[in-house]
Amino acid sequence: MLRGKVLVAQGGGPTAVINQSLVGVVQEARKYAQVEGIYGALHGVSGIVKEELVDLTQETTANLERVAATPSSALGSTRDKPDAAYCEKIYKVLKAHNVRYFFYIGGNDSSDTCRLVGNFAKAENYEMAAVHVPKTVDNDLMENDHVPGFPSAARFVGCAFSGINLDNKALPGVYVGVVMGRHAGFLTAAAALGRIQPDDGPHLIYLPERTFDMDRFLADVKRVYDQHKRCVIAASEGIHDAEGIPIVTRLMKNVEKDAHGNVQLSGTGALADLMCDQVKSKLGIKRVRGDTFGYLQRSFLGVVSDVDQREARESAQMAVKLGMQGFTGSVAIKRVGDYAVEYVATPIEKIAALTRVMPDEFINAEGNNVTPAFMNYIRPLVGTTLPDVSVLRAPKVAKILNK
Amino acid sequence: MLRGKVLVAQGGGPTAVINQSLVGVVQEARKYAQVEGIYGALHGVSGIVKEELVDLTQETTANLERVAATPSSALGSTRDKPDAAYCEKIYKVLKAHNVRYFFYIGGNDSSDTCRLVGNFAKAENYEMAAVHVPKTVDNDLMENDHVPGFPSAARFVGCAFSGINLDNKALPGVYVGVVMGRHAGFLTAAAALGRIQPDDGPHLIYLPERTFDMDRFLADVKRVYDQHKRCVIAASEGIHDAEGIPIVTRLMKNVEKDAHGNVQLSGTGALADLMCDQVKSKLGIKRVRGDTFGYLQRSFLGVVSDVDQREARESAQMAVKLGMQGFTGSVAIKRVGDYAVEYVATPIEKIAALTRVMPDEFINAEGNNVTPAFMNYIRPLVGTTLPDVSVLRAPKVAKILNK
Repeated sequence: MLRGKVLVAQGGGPTAVINQSLVGVVQEARKYAQVEGIYGALHGVSGIVKEELVDLTQETTANLERVAATPSSALGSTRDKPDAAYCEKIYKVLKAHNVRYFFYIGGNDSSDTCRLVGNFAKAENYEMAAVHVPKTVDNDLMENDHVPGFPSAARFVGCAFSGINLDNKALPGVYVGVVMGRHAGFLTAAAALGRIQPDDGPHLIYLPERTFDMDRFLADVKRVYDQHKRCVIAASEGIHDAEGIPIVTRLMKNVEKDAHGNVQLSGTGALADLMCDQVKSKLGIKRVRGDTFGYLQRSFLGVVSDVDQREARESAQMAVKLGMQGFTGSVAIKRVGDYAVEYVATPIEKIAALTRVMPDEFINAEGNNVTPAFMNYIRPLVGTTLPDVSVLRAPKVAKILNK
Repeated sequence: MLRGKVLVAQGGGPTAVINQSLVGVVQEARKYAQVEGIYGALHGVSGIVKEELVDLTQETTANLERVAATPSSALGSTRDKPDAAYCEKIYKVLKAHNVRYFFYIGGNDSSDTCRLVGNFAKAENYEMAAVHVPKTVDNDLMENDHVPGFPSAARFVGCAFSGINLDNKALPGVYVGVVMGRHAGFLTAAAALGRIQPDDGPHLIYLPERTFDMDRFLADVKRVYDQHKRCVIAASEGIHDAEGIPIVTRLMKNVEKDAHGNVQLSGTGALADLMCDQVKSKLGIKRVRGDTFGYLQRSFLGVVSDVDQREARESAQMAVKLGMQGFTGSVAIKRVGDYAVEYVATPIEKIAALTRVMPDEFINAEGNNVTPAFMNYIRPLVGTTLPDVSVLRAPKVAKILNK
């Protein structure tokens, strides 16, 4: 076992449990005699190249546990995508500090960064384990049944739509809720957790896995509204037309892209407003409201799945166990029962820069809802203590006037 | 004591605890021998005039307790504002069903409705107690230290900004969160609950109690951004210019008004988008994001203050106790300690159709933040079990490259 330092970093969008993974790495690494120090890089790989490192060995376990329960990335994050020159800088810093175990917690872009850094070290004959620890609210990593961060965000979306449905029942109208998810509709589909009674919403769910057609959407809304006198809709921010162009980018003057070429979809209410305007003007329905869940859904304080917390922690612990044996790659979550999981060492090429989308069996034939198979998939993930909900069942009083 | 029926209804916007008040009325009324039945009107006063009543006497206590813990208005709600003709219809229904105790749970508009109905019954010499039970997320009822529904919504806003602040710290930029509140800024001010560390956001808070000036806003943002390299802003949907025109209505093509003449402010992302556009174009800051909290904040499942639940229940129980003695009026919450409350019988004329706003001592001199007096006011309300948050305190590692 090579003696050296551990370096851990967090990349991409924050989640409610990404600090569980961070603390999982730190606590697990403390157990190994070959570890001569545990460093954290501030703001992901950008902190490595700037040599902005902190000594996590100095943290108390009491504070680490408080940080683990805190949402968002405690080390800070980045959207940087390292190229060859960037990798050379990373290499110099890693070598200078004798880092022999590198753990990068992140999604598909971050796993690709991890892969590039690992390859670069290999090419330079610098012996180092580089292990990717999975996280993403989009749930779009290949090889994983689901990804830490997603279940807590799904719990948020489910609780939001449960409340929205009850609100919409009290003051009927049409409601559009726009949920995060660029290419994968898992998080939007989680809106279905809000349904308990037969007439509960969301009545319609639109996912990026299917082409969005405005006329079909309006026909769907009209049908539901005629039946229930109300309609609750969940739409992914990534819904797109037949050409694959996101509906929201058709509306924006200046399209903003990050270093990975991703168009900015969140942080604007434009899509919800457009869909509401269409319902108002084309269907003549008066009470139409739209919300964009935005940044609330990925780091809301106190809405977290205990299952997600446990799995985020455990997958990071497994990453350290593998890394300490010299493994380079990723750790994937496999479902092995109903409900149980295993953490599996996985070649990073099977994950890096790839995107998993919802399987067909989770989406109904009309492409405007989810199936029972999806409900069975998501229910065990979102936590063991979901709040209870009920409705009045009091019988109607006979009318005695105007007889 | 007059023998007759109890009728309970819910008006205005739903809250997370309005069903606690409903169940408080039902459970308390069951104890009185003079009560020959407990009816609920569907969708507030509109359900009374349509004689859409349900017999709550038939509900099990087990289900009533589940409904109490469920957000939104279980009986349904309405935005109707009764005029004289409307009141005559209400009177006919009340008399036909021998309703002698009328409880209307709602905000300032609903209390006015309650007052009008009470006056109408009086004018017709129909003996009936009409008691208003307070609720509103805006916290804008006169005579009340605070109003049931507000503390839970404030908890939501506080938890949201706590997470948003951590998210913004991980991926720095400018963030604008738009919060409900037409004339009163209490709910927006609750964003300050997200601050723990000295550099935590929201760094700026804009309330409808002060005139909003776009140039001053941009100067504020620039100052904070220059200092912290990031800026989190909480803005009320009701912020307005010097003429009193809401900033958001300047943007909308078709201004929508309800029966009370209130302009629609929620259910659109326009204000957040406008403020973000200004920051991007005028200050040249790239990463600028905006969210509109919309309907999530008033009926989110599972984010509720236990203090609020208790007070919503208890104020309704007190309303029944007073009503059974023939009292007509409202019940107000008075703070009598730090922290303790009393429920006080209050003439409805002191509440109906009036709006309370934040006292000057809660707002800083610059009009862009709240004071310690406000923090002391709000902290006991939002619950006894707020989630804990912490940050890493690991020391920086000395740079060893480029020496």
